[in-house]
Amino acid sequence: MDFTLIAQDPGCGARTGRIATPHGDILTPAFMPVGTQGTVKALTPERVASLGAQIILGNTYHLYLRPGHRLIREMGGLHRFMNWHRPILTDSGGFQIYSLGALRTITEEGAQFQSHIDGSRHFLSPETAVEIQEALGSDIMMCLDECIAYPAGRQDVQRALERTSRWALRSKKSRTNEAQALFGIVQGGVYPDLRRRSLEDLLAVGFDGYALGGLSVGEPKDLMMENLAATAPLLPADRPRYLMGVGTPEDLVEGVHQGIDLFDCVMPTRSARNGLLFTNGQKVVIKNARYREDDSPVDRTCDCYTCQNYSRAYLRHLYVAGEILAMVLNTIHNLRYYLRLMERIRDAVGNGRYSEFRKVFLEERKAAEGEDAAGSA
Amino acid sequence: MDFTLIAQDPGCGARTGRIATPHGDILTPAFMPVGTQGTVKALTPERVASLGAQIILGNTYHLYLRPGHRLIREMGGLHRFMNWHRPILTDSGGFQIYSLGALRTITEEGAQFQSHIDGSRHFLSPETAVEIQEALGSDIMMCLDECIAYPAGRQDVQRALERTSRWALRSKKSRTNEAQALFGIVQGGVYPDLRRRSLEDLLAVGFDGYALGGLSVGEPKDLMMENLAATAPLLPADRPRYLMGVGTPEDLVEGVHQGIDLFDCVMPTRSARNGLLFTNGQKVVIKNARYREDDSPVDRTCDCYTCQNYSRAYLRHLYVAGEILAMVLNTIHNLRYYLRLMERIRDAVGNGRYSEFRKVFLEERKAAEGEDAAGSA
Repeated sequence: MDFTLIAQDPGCGARTGRIATPHGDILTPAFMPVGTQGTVKALTPERVASLGAQIILGNTYHLYLRPGHRLIREMGGLHRFMNWHRPILTDSGGFQIYSLGALRTITEEGAQFQSHIDGSRHFLSPETAVEIQEALGSDIMMCLDECIAYPAGRQDVQRALERTSRWALRSKKSRTNEAQALFGIVQGGVYPDLRRRSLEDLLAVGFDGYALGGLSVGEPKDLMMENLAATAPLLPADRPRYLMGVGTPEDLVEGVHQGIDLFDCVMPTRSARNGLLFTNGQKVVIKNARYREDDSPVDRTCDCYTCQNYSRAYLRHLYVAGEILAMVLNTIHNLRYYLRLMERIRDAVGNGRYSEFRKVFLEERKAAEGEDAAGSA
Repeated sequence: MDFTLIAQDPGCGARTGRIATPHGDILTPAFMPVGTQGTVKALTPERVASLGAQIILGNTYHLYLRPGHRLIREMGGLHRFMNWHRPILTDSGGFQIYSLGALRTITEEGAQFQSHIDGSRHFLSPETAVEIQEALGSDIMMCLDECIAYPAGRQDVQRALERTSRWALRSKKSRTNEAQALFGIVQGGVYPDLRRRSLEDLLAVGFDGYALGGLSVGEPKDLMMENLAATAPLLPADRPRYLMGVGTPEDLVEGVHQGIDLFDCVMPTRSARNGLLFTNGQKVVIKNARYREDDSPVDRTCDCYTCQNYSRAYLRHLYVAGEILAMVLNTIHNLRYYLRLMERIRDAVGNGRYSEFRKVFLEERKAAEGEDAAGSA
């Protein structure tokens, strides 16, 4: 994996770059649609690519349990299995064990957990997490980390970050394929000094990229932003920086401001399936009766297939009728909204206008939220 | 609407033709994918067209109840509402009242029924059925008919067909837009002489096309085939002939043999959503464990997007995981199977080889069924 810095905004941390992987390049900052079970839900891979996705995320936990990483390896790896031929980043499974795995027990050796599907017992160690990701054949692998709930006391957070550091070293030692990049994950909860400590440990091991984990796990937004601002600038400038599981459009804009290069989140795809559509103005809750006879597109300024061809009235009808096409069309719109936002962000950084872009964007969002509140009052 | 006969097979009733409609031509014999609620379930209209669909069917009953024909008219008609710009045939709603409507009461005036969605009361007459279809703006409308359950006594069947004849006359009188074709529906249960009588009544009124209704409603297959063989040849040769709600691939081949031009059925789309995939050989029940590590496509001879890009193992994974993409990919395959079969049928008739085509096809299907039985034993 190779990372080239292209432009650095003079007024803030924002930057553009290019990550070269075995399956092609990724222009950063980039948003990674989530393809949990070997599919970005509801869409064909060609559609995902046509929306502007350069890389997607696959969930190691889910793919390990079903259909199994050995099966995927036999089928030629995840790219071939799911017919997606651009880069893939896989997480380590640590976050899902934390959020989904029942009766999990974390020891120094690794994590014992029960499948959320059938209750079967499994064990994931730093070494097996790498082994599974190597079987999947992702372009970027993540180290197994120990996620910790918010709120957590300082001592617990410190214990978890120290274990994460030891696991990071074991992860790096266990990899057998240098063509697959490996990223370390900074933990440390909402304690900036512990996050610094975590990063120092990871830098001592040395990784292809660095991620901020354990944010957006329930802490107040200002605490997240505070820790982001305290930690992101410390991440090495010559490596990709990844803010895991984040977030809202505003979060992406703020993340870029702090120098983040990669994001992933289920928000655009999951919201789409729940009938919540992103626009530059107010959010559209498509089931609302006010859209019953609304012949306009979801967003007049949007260039997506859905907005070019369908009315809010039709999308409301599909959603209310429980039609599969509702999920398809809504997902197309929301992903395009996110991916187009990233295009605008890259343009703004490339033109040295990111501070201005951020200011205008956040003001527009705030104004739209005000309308939302007025509209629902 | 204009119908041109292109070729007539010398050895049987099979023929090819062209139906010209305001939204384009339909080469017959043609299969119409069912788009019940203003969408062919799981697919975009562009995909449906790319699979070879020349015309789709919309369900008047469903669209009348939700989102309502007036709304669709305000939105510019069904074509624009759902973004499908090729021909549409709408049924009259009669069959859904018969199969879905609770507490229905049929009188000479029309049918009173309760919505299967919310129990609200509605009334559909021959006149309102035409009015609704004119609001939808379909290219081909169907007369409201009185469907009758199988088995039914001769007197009940006769009473229903006579009412259907009177309703057919009222339907024709009530239409206001000659650009939308109107088809009559032959009833008469499984009594060939009553079906002849029904047809004579309809011919006296005169329609743009003639349909066989009330078949494939639970009667034994040989009774259906017997009535099809007795009635289809009597339908006027210079008008399109439509066998409603039929059927299996074998049924289509037999229908064409008897001179049928149009078919519709939920079988390919509904089966797809249930994980049952059509092939020239055995049917593929995709959830079966035997496909777990099967790297081959559903059907090696199929030219569809699904078979060109995905393995049975992947499709099984998607289906077992409950992924929306399973519905999408399965529907693409099954619809392409049906529409490609129609292409092969049109080729065979055009080349004067339909009897041979039919013989080989039915033998292959029988052999495949034998393998199915052996495989599941």
